[in-house]
Amino acid sequence: MSSDEKLLIIPIGGLGEIGKNMTAFCYGDDIVVLDSGMAFPEEDMLGIDLVIPDMTYLLDNKDKIRAVVLTHGHEDHIGSLFYLLKHVDVPVYGSRLTLGLVEGRLREYSVQANSLMPVAPGDMIRAGQFEIGFIQVNHSIADALGIYFKTPIGTVVHTGDFKIDQTPVDGKIIDIHKFAELGDQGVLVLLSDSTNAERPGFTKSERTVTEALNEHFRMAKGRIIMTTFASNVLRLQQAISSAYEFGRKVALLGRSMVTVITKAAELGYMTIPDGVLIGVEEINRYPDNQILILTTGSQGEPMAALSRLAFQNHRSMEVHRGDTVLIAATPIPGNERSVGRTIDALMRLGVDVVYERSSGIHVSGHGSQEELKLILNLVRPKFFIPVHGEYRMLKFHGKLANEVGIPKENVFIGENGQVLEFTRETGRVSGKVTAGKIFVDGLGIGDVGNIVMRDRRQLSQDGVLIVVVTLDKQNGLVLDGPDIVSRGFVYVRDADNLINEARRVVKEVLERYQNAPVTEWMPMKSDMRDSLTKYLFTKTGRKPMILPIIMEV
Amino acid sequence: MSSDEKLLIIPIGGLGEIGKNMTAFCYGDDIVVLDSGMAFPEEDMLGIDLVIPDMTYLLDNKDKIRAVVLTHGHEDHIGSLFYLLKHVDVPVYGSRLTLGLVEGRLREYSVQANSLMPVAPGDMIRAGQFEIGFIQVNHSIADALGIYFKTPIGTVVHTGDFKIDQTPVDGKIIDIHKFAELGDQGVLVLLSDSTNAERPGFTKSERTVTEALNEHFRMAKGRIIMTTFASNVLRLQQAISSAYEFGRKVALLGRSMVTVITKAAELGYMTIPDGVLIGVEEINRYPDNQILILTTGSQGEPMAALSRLAFQNHRSMEVHRGDTVLIAATPIPGNERSVGRTIDALMRLGVDVVYERSSGIHVSGHGSQEELKLILNLVRPKFFIPVHGEYRMLKFHGKLANEVGIPKENVFIGENGQVLEFTRETGRVSGKVTAGKIFVDGLGIGDVGNIVMRDRRQLSQDGVLIVVVTLDKQNGLVLDGPDIVSRGFVYVRDADNLINEARRVVKEVLERYQNAPVTEWMPMKSDMRDSLTKYLFTKTGRKPMILPIIMEV
Repeated sequence: MSSDEKLLIIPIGGLGEIGKNMTAFCYGDDIVVLDSGMAFPEEDMLGIDLVIPDMTYLLDNKDKIRAVVLTHGHEDHIGSLFYLLKHVDVPVYGSRLTLGLVEGRLREYSVQANSLMPVAPGDMIRAGQFEIGFIQVNHSIADALGIYFKTPIGTVVHTGDFKIDQTPVDGKIIDIHKFAELGDQGVLVLLSDSTNAERPGFTKSERTVTEALNEHFRMAKGRIIMTTFASNVLRLQQAISSAYEFGRKVALLGRSMVTVITKAAELGYMTIPDGVLIGVEEINRYPDNQILILTTGSQGEPMAALSRLAFQNHRSMEVHRGDTVLIAATPIPGNERSVGRTIDALMRLGVDVVYERSSGIHVSGHGSQEELKLILNLVRPKFFIPVHGEYRMLKFHGKLANEVGIPKENVFIGENGQVLEFTRETGRVSGKVTAGKIFVDGLGIGDVGNIVMRDRRQLSQDGVLIVVVTLDKQNGLVLDGPDIVSRGFVYVRDADNLINEARRVVKEVLERYQNAPVTEWMPMKSDMRDSLTKYLFTKTGRKPMILPIIMEV
Repeated sequence: MSSDEKLLIIPIGGLGEIGKNMTAFCYGDDIVVLDSGMAFPEEDMLGIDLVIPDMTYLLDNKDKIRAVVLTHGHEDHIGSLFYLLKHVDVPVYGSRLTLGLVEGRLREYSVQANSLMPVAPGDMIRAGQFEIGFIQVNHSIADALGIYFKTPIGTVVHTGDFKIDQTPVDGKIIDIHKFAELGDQGVLVLLSDSTNAERPGFTKSERTVTEALNEHFRMAKGRIIMTTFASNVLRLQQAISSAYEFGRKVALLGRSMVTVITKAAELGYMTIPDGVLIGVEEINRYPDNQILILTTGSQGEPMAALSRLAFQNHRSMEVHRGDTVLIAATPIPGNERSVGRTIDALMRLGVDVVYERSSGIHVSGHGSQEELKLILNLVRPKFFIPVHGEYRMLKFHGKLANEVGIPKENVFIGENGQVLEFTRETGRVSGKVTAGKIFVDGLGIGDVGNIVMRDRRQLSQDGVLIVVVTLDKQNGLVLDGPDIVSRGFVYVRDADNLINEARRVVKEVLERYQNAPVTEWMPMKSDMRDSLTKYLFTKTGRKPMILPIIMEV
């Protein structure tokens, strides 16, 4: 069998994690990349701004890449495209809204995209030996797509992020007919969204949100301030429609809110009635009950507009008693505390805050167990790869597949970098390529690795203590010092004694090395470090980073 | 009216937060302190081990303190007692289990408690002008108490942490008769637990856990490894009883698990059938289906036994395919990610993990809205202070009080340090005393303040860069340096150029100050700092802490 008759599916990111989704599909000499996302840093990734997938495999094979296809415009699917396109010049296919959001992001990184090619549900394109089709799905952003690949040895279907919304707000229901048709024709591999695989039942329709929102608009006596993800174009449309219905003007707060709404409206994904939008500076010209403010900050991010309002340091606006804040988003795991703090701060100002799950103003964009099973039954794949989720979610999704009749050995709970090899009849793990996390910190991409991170962790726990001494390079005599400077260790004014004692410890070491040749200064430094670590730990129970610096004159 | 006729209630900790509960009750020259808890550090409190209340007010008035009374043995109620007792020698009243746990904690801090006085539900004690009574309540630890204070101007009731469990495992139902009786006699002020004030309905009985646990014991084919808070004596008892019923031996993993179970059994709060307990080293002598292991680590704490098992670095034990791990605890907000990581790691090893809320193996120890309303209606207080909760929880609890008929102006949503003053007829906020957080870091209590914390934060984000130069103190000529050392900033081997350029920036500054008198070295240093900050930010987008050090010879 020639290698042409093998299909390789390589998850570059998105397995065993929420974020940085990216998958390579390889057939013969052709590679197609599906999505190129980013992830938010975890709490122990100190100082990191964002995380992108390690794309070594793709960059090593960049001559084979024929296309990038995008499922939708969320950051965890498009957020690392700037990096890929910096190194690889290939056409990028996605829906109009997706590409509109991509353009904005690429501009931020000054990356040129030579061919952004808009596609619509039902379109087919060709990339090498792949024929690629796009399927309408429902998600918490408009214009989301499932994608299928026809290869000489069979069809592969990727759902993208999806839910099955029987009554979507924009009327565009997920194309279950297409999934059924593909299933009828025979599908070799299905890759499907596992985010809510732990959740029983069906995810509620977006339409239920409209009703809940209208109820809050009906009740609110003062201004309404609503927050959601800026990318949640559907939810923002619902809010603007409710505002229009109840005679409220709409002001936008936060840069990404302005960017996304402008772009979405420009492309026709949002309908904003004439005269509804006003500037933030105009808010006070209207009575409170004629105002809706849409703001960023649904995750309690300290720098976002909602937190600034809550902690009263927004430059152009204040909240006050009588305002109602609607939080139309669920905290991403890890953000519960910061969201809680924002709610508390708003309540202290006398603001009504609506945030409970029971309020009905937010529903998930991902399908729950019954939806996942329905897609599995419609598509009836020979092989199944749960994607987009932490390990436990993939595992749950795999169990659901077993329940609907896909045998265990045909379900692959994969890992990033694993090479999954399929023929017409067989599927197996055939190897492993480089995969992992690349940290973006400021302007640096990948220059913060394990050593820097370990140092930041130590610095964050107990601070740093620097010992400087100037020695005579002829005879090793102390000419100045030892000077001790510490930061993040103890409050120095209270610790004069401790620092004096530390200086004595250093002096003792110096005496031991008196008249020692320059060659012994390395052991002397490590001796200083050890003696100080021991002394300081006994006295304080802390282990600051200790940096001895020897100057020579 | 003499000051004798005023009762002051001063929350020292526990309002607007979960943790470090502590309240002072003052009448005339008498102060009684209720609880003395600690809190876990929040994620931005870098390097901090634990947080205790600022007790300045109590230490300033220590001659007036007549007694400490404790509601139960959880850390957020007894964890700062070591600090209070170090400064104040007064009798401490609590149930036997509570005092047993207190003893252990005090020993860790080498603090002597001169009079730990055990009390039981129904007991009354006298402390100054206070007559103090103790009431049986249900909670997730045995021997939990509500406490009431009879003063010349009226009765104050404090629920402690509670739920209303109609079918508790130990048969000791909360003494609703006593609450009713106090209500009949008239209560001036009620303080009540707000933890679950956002939750509708009733909290489930502990007994439902027994049934769910037995079901899992019936199903498990291999070893069972169960984790819960070590202090959750009731849940541990349930597990041991199930183990006994299903013929399993029990081993304990983790220091606090051993300490608490030993103490609870010794005091008679747990019944451990003879021969059930075995040592960890004996596990392998039994078939897998005859083993239950109780372990710490229900919050995904990286150093606890369960995480060590999950990440395969426990020194004396390994988990394997076929094991079932039961996580009988809900993640405390902020711990979701670490718990998730532990579950994922266990699943990767092929272990079955039961953790979902729907599994029924854990229920909350705090009463939900219907229970809170029932207590409010039984006690019928004139004034109400919701305690033990974040601001939004207190606010919700306040609304519940309004719903059952307590007028808004009689409900105090307090803040730590607020002085609430009551007479027979009136209640008001009459002042403010010092209150806040004291950080415990290693052996230091309170020596880490805002400056140290701010430095740690900066260090954690972008690291530190140290510039050392040795100057001739006569003429300011450079004798050695500038040397540059960085940690946590960039990976230095990749950044030679950057560091060389940084050195050039420093040299330019030095040239500008050539021949300058020693008095100008301070401005020179700040000039170095500014120039380097600007240069490094342009090049890297990062702002490391910059420390210029001048040595003189």
